[in-house]
Parts: sequence; structure tokens; C-alpha cells
Amino acid sequence: MKLKDLGEFNFINRINRTIKLSGQVIKGIGDDAAVLKYTKDKYLLFTTDMLVEGKHFHKCDKAGLVGAKALSCNVSDIAAMGGVPKFAVCSVGFPGSLDLKYADELYGGIKKIAQRFEVDLVGGDTVGSGKIVINIALIGEVEKENLTLRSGAKENDVIFVTGNIGGSIKLRHLNFTPRLKEARFLVKNFKVNSMIDVSDALLADLGHILKESNKGAAIFEKTIPVSKYATGFDSAVRDGEDFELVFTLSERYADRLEDTWPFRTRLSKIGRVLNGREGFSLVKKSGKSEKIKPAGFTHF
Amino acid sequence: MKLKDLGEFNFINRINRTIKLSGQVIKGIGDDAAVLKYTKDKYLLFTTDMLVEGKHFHKCDKAGLVGAKALSCNVSDIAAMGGVPKFAVCSVGFPGSLDLKYADELYGGIKKIAQRFEVDLVGGDTVGSGKIVINIALIGEVEKENLTLRSGAKENDVIFVTGNIGGSIKLRHLNFTPRLKEARFLVKNFKVNSMIDVSDALLADLGHILKESNKGAAIFEKTIPVSKYATGFDSAVRDGEDFELVFTLSERYADRLEDTWPFRTRLSKIGRVLNGREGFSLVKKSGKSEKIKPAGFTHF
Repeated sequence: MKLKDLGEFNFINRINRTIKLSGQVIKGIGDDAAVLKYTKDKYLLFTTDMLVEGKHFHKCDKAGLVGAKALSCNVSDIAAMGGVPKFAVCSVGFPGSLDLKYADELYGGIKKIAQRFEVDLVGGDTVGSGKIVINIALIGEVEKENLTLRSGAKENDVIFVTGNIGGSIKLRHLNFTPRLKEARFLVKNFKVNSMIDVSDALLADLGHILKESNKGAAIFEKTIPVSKYATGFDSAVRDGEDFELVFTLSERYADRLEDTWPFRTRLSKIGRVLNGREGFSLVKKSGKSEKIKPAGFTHF
Repeated sequence: MKLKDLGEFNFINRINRTIKLSGQVIKGIGDDAAVLKYTKDKYLLFTTDMLVEGKHFHKCDKAGLVGAKALSCNVSDIAAMGGVPKFAVCSVGFPGSLDLKYADELYGGIKKIAQRFEVDLVGGDTVGSGKIVINIALIGEVEKENLTLRSGAKENDVIFVTGNIGGSIKLRHLNFTPRLKEARFLVKNFKVNSMIDVSDALLADLGHILKESNKGAAIFEKTIPVSKYATGFDSAVRDGEDFELVFTLSERYADRLEDTWPFRTRLSKIGRVLNGREGFSLVKKSGKSEKIKPAGFTHF
């Protein structure tokens, strides 16, 4: 059997099933970042992302944007847990024949994001590789009361999404702002029950929340903020790498959130969490409801 | 200018020069692991290593050994700081056409080492890639009094190395035991002034200690424990990936260390730390002394 026949998520589940963890791990594989015991008031967060030339970016893309993306997608993971990023280590595989200018620009992009989000770049590894590969691992921290998992969605929660969805392939997947300040505003001022960042696709990532929370949901086509760069609604909700936040909170906070939202970043109420038995459905503009089988970007 | 013309170490220095760090970082780039503020009594350690097919291993190598190496070389880095490993995240790039059996065995190798050294595997990333790439990032911790840097070597320190050196290319680079228990014995029972693991090469890595400590050294060919797998003395001290420990401590502890060393792992006294002005020299079996220009495995 080949990896691609099993699929990425099945493969990860297969690995995860056989891993035993110590009592120091609050949450291992299966959220945007791992959650680890730390101090009396805080948890440590730990996440990693790998970008491969030809898959996540192309040689013709600007090196500075590629570097920025490598750190930004990790910052987005920490944000989606409600935390703040702190320390990063960065491994890069480069062909020896690569122009020094490209390598400098790539690290320049990483450093720019590090500075902007106050991340210390504390180490790394530099190796030879035919194709360019970048892996960043990021440590963050979160106050215990602000930790937000995928698994906390409650029946009747309102589902929100930040920004616009879809069309990220037209540059934005390389040039996005991780929603760190938005996430911190949310967890410090509201009781956010569940949160995830849109890396796989809106439907897939909301699907992760519903699966981990054992809930269903109804979302409404007319309320979903489709980007002007998307080629259509169907692709917008099924394409990956928007790096927006999807989160749920109790209905009684929803209005206050909309009233007090201080950012230019768009905020959209797109649906409601339902009982698990009701499944996951999309109400089309026509009023017709269709069952959703979550699907998104898969790596094999 | 191409990367290979600048060379790996010059490139890393070039990057490092422009990085500004916060007060939470005790030691950033330039040791076996980063050292970060943590609790009253302990520091956090953070390291990462990337392995690329065709560079660090070949497709024909046993997948279980490749996985084991990916985690072991990180454990070796934490050991060389005097610490203990705690939490790992693992990114893997795989071709979709790869046999599931290979992927299972690779993760099996990682899990075996994780279990042996009590490391929690808490997350990761799985992506598509033409060549297999594995990156592991590892968090460790160390009691403040046991932290051992490269930069602490003192004049007249005795230089020790564990195990045998050279010939790792004949399998041992894929099948070695990180010297964690030896390192912990050392830091708990002795005042170790400096320590590093032999990843680049004995001369190169001892050279890192001397450079960071602003010291010179004399080492003696006849005392260096050359492996039976090495093709000769010169290659043994210049080849990489032995993953043994090189460390220095005051002469007054040297005899007690040799007398109380409880392990089957060989322990060899190979030389002495000198004043920086005296340079780094190798005393040959003939009695002739030659200046050493540290050199080792370079990745470009």
C-alpha cells in the first residue's frame, strides 16, 4: 500500500494511535499546537511546519515571502490556541549552488516576521538539499484561562470567521498576516469555546472542530466572506492556506463581540454549532441545505 | 556568489550577526541547543536537526534506523548541554508513492528512541516531497547548575572524549546511542567546564569549544580512540557524525572521573586546554607537533 492511498489524515491517526504520552502533556498531536505543563499560570505551546519547494512554494516566488510564510504559519498555529509565540528554531535545506542573495532574502523574511511578532530566533540547522526545504518549530505560551482547543465547541455556539476566504493561491498564501492580535483580543475579552486556523480549508478546519467537539453545525453560504480572488464559492471553502481564524462562542457574547471588534480585519458570523447527530450542513443561497463531507488540502 | 562558496559556518555567522534577541534568551545560535529562561531552578533547551535523503541517509538504509537517527541526534545535542530531553515535534516530507511500510518503520524508529529516552512525541507535520526529509525539534530542560556550554573551557583543563572516533559512515552514523546517561553522570558528579557532541568531526567540534572559549589545546595522537571502522587516523578525526561527547574539566577532577566512570562506554583523556595564544596542535606518535586548522563535515 502506498501513502497516498491511505491519505494524510488516516496516516497521522495511524501514527498517533500508538503514541503513549507522559503526564506532562496536556494535549499532544491533534490540535494547532501541543500543550505542555509549564508554570503555575501558563502552559507551553509547541508547533512545527515544513515547507517544500514545488509543493508549498515555487523557486520563482520571492524568497522573502517564502521565509515570512514559514514563520507566519507557525505563529498562526500559536494564535489559534489563544497563545503568544516566543522562541523559534529554523532548519533550512539548500542546494549549494543556490545564490547567496536568495538565502539572505529568505532569512530576511523570517527575521521580519520574528521581529514583528516578537519571536526570538534561537537556533537552527542548515543542510544541503536538492530542493529548498524550510522547517520552523515554534514555542509559545498561553495563560491557562486563555487556552482554546478545537474540542470545546458547544451546542448553539455561534461560528465566526475572520477575514476573507478562498483564492489564497493567488499570492495571499505567501503574504498573509497571522491573526495573532485578533486571537489575543478574543481570548482576553471573551470566552471562546473552540478555535482553529484555516490551513486545510474552511470546511475541513471547521470539520476538525466539529469532530473533536462531537458536534454538528449549519453554515450559511450567504454569510461566508468569499475573497474577490476566489474563483467561486465551492473552491473558496475547499481551498487551503487562508490562515484566518474560525472560532465559536456562546450566543450571548456574539453581539457584544461584533459591537466591540476593534480591527479592520473583517469578522463574519457564518453559522451555528448543532448537536452531533444533526451533522454538518451548508445552507445554500437558494435555501436548500446540503450535507458536507469535510474535505480540504491533503498533502499526498 | 553561491552558498557553497561562502560555506556553511560563514553563512550561519552571517545570519546570526543580524539577529537581536530578547532578555529571555540565555544563549541563542552557536551551541548544541538554545538556552532559554524557564523556572527558578531550570533552563529550557531547544534544538532542531534536519535529515535529507541522499545527504544524511539513503533510500536503501533501513527506515527504522533513519527515524532513530533523526531523534537521536537531537537527544545528543540536549545531552551535550548537560540536560534531559522532554518534548519533540517531528515533520516529515514523503513522496506520496512511498510504501506505507517504509513510513511506518521510520516512525517506529522515532518512537523507539522516544520511549528509550522518555521523550514525548507531541506533534508534527506531514507533507508531500520528492525526496524524504525529516526534521525533529526537541525541547529539553537542565538544572541551572548543570548547564554546560561550549564556551567554558579553562586553561589546563583535561580534554576527554567518550567512545571511539571515526568510521561512522559504516553504519554507526545511523545506529548510535546518544550519550545521555554519560552526560548526566558527568554534570551531576563533576564540574564540567565545556562540552559538545561530535557531529561535525572531533577536530572541528573541539575547535568549536576552543573558539568559543578563546583557548588553545594540545591533543595527542596516541591517546585518541580511533574506531576499528575508521580508514585511518586522519579521516577518523576529520569525519563527522560520531555523536560522542568531547568535554573538558579541571585536572584535579580528571583522575577521580577515570576511577569512578561506571559505563562500558570508553573514556579517553586526549589532551589539554592551553592559553589561546598557543593555538590548537596535534602531537603525532613520532613526537612531532602540527598545527590544526579545524575542519570537518560541511553541508554545502
